[in-house]
Amino acid sequence: MLGRSHSKKKSTDGKHRFAISSFRGLGAPELSKKLRNLIKTQNHQIGAYEQAGRESQSLASQLSEWGESTEDDAVSDISDKLGVLLAEIAEQEDQFAQNLEESRGVLKQIRNVEASVQPTRTNKQKIQDELQKLKYKEPESTKIVTLEQELVRAEAQSLVADAQLTNVTRQKFKEAYDIHTAAVIERAEKQIILAQQARRLINMLDDTPIVPGEDRVAFTGADEGKEVLNDAETGLRGWSLNVDPIESNAGKIGNSGMGAPPQQEQSVTTVTTAGEGSVTSDQQRVEELERQQQEELASENPPYPTAEKTGNAALAS
Amino acid sequence: MLGRSHSKKKSTDGKHRFAISSFRGLGAPELSKKLRNLIKTQNHQIGAYEQAGRESQSLASQLSEWGESTEDDAVSDISDKLGVLLAEIAEQEDQFAQNLEESRGVLKQIRNVEASVQPTRTNKQKIQDELQKLKYKEPESTKIVTLEQELVRAEAQSLVADAQLTNVTRQKFKEAYDIHTAAVIERAEKQIILAQQARRLINMLDDTPIVPGEDRVAFTGADEGKEVLNDAETGLRGWSLNVDPIESNAGKIGNSGMGAPPQQEQSVTTVTTAGEGSVTSDQQRVEELERQQQEELASENPPYPTAEKTGNAALAS
Repeated sequence: MLGRSHSKKKSTDGKHRFAISSFRGLGAPELSKKLRNLIKTQNHQIGAYEQAGRESQSLASQLSEWGESTEDDAVSDISDKLGVLLAEIAEQEDQFAQNLEESRGVLKQIRNVEASVQPTRTNKQKIQDELQKLKYKEPESTKIVTLEQELVRAEAQSLVADAQLTNVTRQKFKEAYDIHTAAVIERAEKQIILAQQARRLINMLDDTPIVPGEDRVAFTGADEGKEVLNDAETGLRGWSLNVDPIESNAGKIGNSGMGAPPQQEQSVTTVTTAGEGSVTSDQQRVEELERQQQEELASENPPYPTAEKTGNAALAS
Repeated sequence: MLGRSHSKKKSTDGKHRFAISSFRGLGAPELSKKLRNLIKTQNHQIGAYEQAGRESQSLASQLSEWGESTEDDAVSDISDKLGVLLAEIAEQEDQFAQNLEESRGVLKQIRNVEASVQPTRTNKQKIQDELQKLKYKEPESTKIVTLEQELVRAEAQSLVADAQLTNVTRQKFKEAYDIHTAAVIERAEKQIILAQQARRLINMLDDTPIVPGEDRVAFTGADEGKEVLNDAETGLRGWSLNVDPIESNAGKIGNSGMGAPPQQEQSVTTVTTAGEGSVTSDQQRVEELERQQQEELASENPPYPTAEKTGNAALAS
């Protein structure tokens, strides 16, 4: 979005310059484009779930109001409690949207690395082109040696960038879809608990037809209905995510996008599993990050050049 | 919706008449208003789920495309298959929306009866008012007798209408939320199957960090990935709804909104459960309806006046 509106503004500010940046797809395909679009689509998806949650909330209270207006004690009581359960089902849609947002945040980390790797590749290509031109035009130029040395450095930088990219991509891909799939399962399991209790409620309504003038027998299920709500609450409170964990060997990956230096390497397999209180898992993630940063500071001789900063503030949002 | 735009058209077609129908909420509260609004909100809810399904579909293919663009065989293969599972999860959102639409159709049947009962109540009230006025103004009028007879008939009609309303309301309320809650459970159970297989796929990606210049070991999980997709498909195909059934005693309720005449009454309890092939349950419903209509035609002396036709075509949509 940001990138787009920016380029549109440029084309309307008077001078029309055919800068390279205006030609997407010309030369190297822009590395982070596909993921950027995916992240944008996910924003729409999350919005749709938020909308579904809101409409479902509103439906739940409308159901309760309608039930009251029927002036039928049984329908009124049962629809009111059914409304409570449906509102909780709606609440789960909203929670689901929040978890998707968390997963989306992780994908953004891949996108940021993709964006930061692009200049490194471009730089290497530029030096290569320059060198080739010079060798053809001025084969005796002393600048050739300088450029060749520059190219060696650029190639080293590029190798590091590629390693960072694959390391971050794989780790964050796993993390993002760990959160995403755990969110699907969390919503599903909680909504099953609620829907099953809802069915208990619905079954409490006697729909035996009456004849004109006949009165309905008085409704006596109010207490049983309260029990249903209690059971639903207990069920939700007792819920915990129980899935095969997503295993990760990337525990030692730091902000450098590299594994830990050999002397620090350990063969532990960290198991990260999302869900069941994303607050806790957020905290754990922050702590892990801080720990990693300190480790990196502690290791005096990083074995590889440190990561290039993204420096692309627009992408961080 | 239709009712609204209709009344708007009326107010702009030249003559402005202060017909009673222009004054909502004046006199008796309009019986079907709350349910009509609920049905409208449910339309928005269904739309939001359809939107969520579409965005999720699009996300799934964007994930696959991005994976391919990484030129990392493992990421490419796994993201492609993950895309297949996410697309199926999206498909379940769409199926869910369709089931909600079915449930909504059942609620419309209550709304239609509510709408058709209103004129009966209004008519009774009108006769009562007229009678009272006449008794006060012209206590000797012979018209009083006629009106009293009319009132008895209107009261009988109103008793029938009330019985129809409670019979249809309770039966259709149960049916609608049987379908609704079964749909929640169906979506949830199917998405759990898919998300669990998705987690198997994600776990196949090795995220051990590599050092610059190091090559990734070749990805050998393509066949195992195919197995995951097969298992997901087998899981979905083997799925069937397994919930406590919603029990109904309304099996004999016909289009009259009444129970069956005594001689035909049987003490069977029909068990209706939605889901697991809504086509079949649609067919069953149509067959049941046809059977009921024939029964009604067959019973020569219906014990109660036959139901007033709704005659409100606008509401039928």
